[in-house]
Amino acid sequence: MIYVVATLMIKPETHAEFIAAATACIKETRKEPGNIAYDLHESVTDHSKMVFVEQWENAEALVPHRAAEHMKAFGRVVVKCLSAPPKIEVITPEKVDVR
Amino acid sequence: MIYVVATLMIKPETHAEFIAAATACIKETRKEPGNIAYDLHESVTDHSKMVFVEQWENAEALVPHRAAEHMKAFGRVVVKCLSAPPKIEVITPEKVDVR
Repeated sequence: MIYVVATLMIKPETHAEFIAAATACIKETRKEPGNIAYDLHESVTDHSKMVFVEQWENAEALVPHRAAEHMKAFGRVVVKCLSAPPKIEVITPEKVDVR
Repeated sequence: MIYVVATLMIKPETHAEFIAAATACIKETRKEPGNIAYDLHESVTDHSKMVFVEQWENAEALVPHRAAEHMKAFGRVVVKCLSAPPKIEVITPEKVDVR
């Protein structure tokens, strides 16, 4: 199992368009084989900071994910919304303590 | 370096109180030795799902964090807000790919 934390800084005026496109992408991504969890969150301290928190069975599941039509469609919107390059952290855990 | 992903499901009517208490706690936590990143995010698909995404230099830094007065003060608010037990994932990475 892996985690992905993807942080995207968006231009305030694109907020509604970004959320709409992300919501459509989330719906399809959650159907993908290998996806465990996939959701988008808005920082409460900086409303232009949008963070995907994802879990996948393994890193291989990311390959078809990135090629999926719903991700390409979302990508076409994202490029218009970003105010800075995204930071995507793909985390392979050695250990996860769940409390 | 470790990550903490803490997911808290809150009662809708406590949203404002929870955000206010969390914001105060975030301000102080970011000053703590060993903290790298600490922020609270609201899911865009479920507004009662609140997710802390944190980075710490090591797991030891969590000990004084949990004992800190600002965390205790936040905890006293959280217990009134939760609609389900929180899920706290402490992730020790084997590997992190940053893109």
